[in-house]
Amino acid sequence: MNQTTRHFADELEQLKNQLLAMGRLAEERLRVALQALVERNDELIEDVISGDSRINELQIVVDDRCFTMLALYQPVAIDLRTIVSALRISADLERVGDLAVNIGETARQYVSHAPVKPLIDLPRMGELALKMLREALDAFLSRDVAVARTVLRQDEWLDALRNQVVRELLTYMLGNHRTIEPAIDLILISRHLERVGDHATNIAEDVIFIIEGRDVRHRSAGPMAVERRRGLDAAETV
Amino acid sequence: MNQTTRHFADELEQLKNQLLAMGRLAEERLRVALQALVERNDELIEDVISGDSRINELQIVVDDRCFTMLALYQPVAIDLRTIVSALRISADLERVGDLAVNIGETARQYVSHAPVKPLIDLPRMGELALKMLREALDAFLSRDVAVARTVLRQDEWLDALRNQVVRELLTYMLGNHRTIEPAIDLILISRHLERVGDHATNIAEDVIFIIEGRDVRHRSAGPMAVERRRGLDAAETV
Repeated sequence: MNQTTRHFADELEQLKNQLLAMGRLAEERLRVALQALVERNDELIEDVISGDSRINELQIVVDDRCFTMLALYQPVAIDLRTIVSALRISADLERVGDLAVNIGETARQYVSHAPVKPLIDLPRMGELALKMLREALDAFLSRDVAVARTVLRQDEWLDALRNQVVRELLTYMLGNHRTIEPAIDLILISRHLERVGDHATNIAEDVIFIIEGRDVRHRSAGPMAVERRRGLDAAETV
Repeated sequence: MNQTTRHFADELEQLKNQLLAMGRLAEERLRVALQALVERNDELIEDVISGDSRINELQIVVDDRCFTMLALYQPVAIDLRTIVSALRISADLERVGDLAVNIGETARQYVSHAPVKPLIDLPRMGELALKMLREALDAFLSRDVAVARTVLRQDEWLDALRNQVVRELLTYMLGNHRTIEPAIDLILISRHLERVGDHATNIAEDVIFIIEGRDVRHRSAGPMAVERRRGLDAAETV
């Protein structure tokens, strides 16, 4: 291993650690947002709304490192895909932080009304979304395609849970018009959690892309997919 | 201009044309989705729901070109920022295509009920979101920071319009419980349009980043912002 290769490997290790730190922060913010909602805890709600500035700061540090690495080491093939994916993953994690703030804002509105019902399925959605996020990051850190694929499958369960949540809330709204406003808040929170799952899915797809050099975002991509593979092979052999 | 520089310039030109084509397609899908909703036109609704496969195919082509350009030309400074931003912009445009499909799906649910009210503010939101998207892409193509900044300002109007839409719909829902289900559909569509505006904002921020080499995503980024600028300057002088 020559010196440049070693420097690159060191930088990559630090980049992974910073993404992991971002992921942990995003996870923590989301967990607090859900706890604040379930416990109707005003103090926690304000804490969540006050923001995700540490995640935002880390995103800038991560992106900065990625750009510097691209410019200094001019990586190709799997290293290039890893750095570009790190830029995408940092954007996904930053948005998860934003979604935690959105959940906090919606929870603040929600607790200004009487509760619609005991919250059971929404916390379950939250747990599933958090699990997907954690597994997607694990898959990135350990370059494990199998784990990435389990994340993709779980996204369907998350969508099914969301549909169930919305259907149930509609029954409440139709039965008692005083539940309309708070039920809308819960529906919006279910959308926020669904989007957390979407970001975990993006990360999992990036992991597959990094390792297999193959884009799984549009699975029935047709003739263009050949074009893409050809291009990537070209990059691979530069 | 040596041969490599000329090839890079040619490729960049083609990259811009492909992103422009993606943008036009995303815009067209969104326009059809809104028309389908306003006219309660089942045929157009099905057309929108049938998908945005051409946008997805173009995204794969664009991303492929970006990776090949990064690997072949190993660009630095503004060229590097342009290519990495092109990857982000193609992701934003692809999601706008997805949002058009989402609007179509929600419109299909909406038209299965009696209309809540004549739609006035939602089409206005749609027009504003489309305008922001078009201007953000123009700013990218012409590298115009001033135009990019006007997009950022318009995002606040879009949010204000969305709040107005939701407030008005709540009045209908409270007054007549038969409007609850369709009004929820309209609220979801207003969120979809707000997210189109978010993607236009992302593109506008990328334009500022490309030209000024400065990240405007987190405007009160604090001490880390200095870190970022330093890193970018380093990349700039490689």
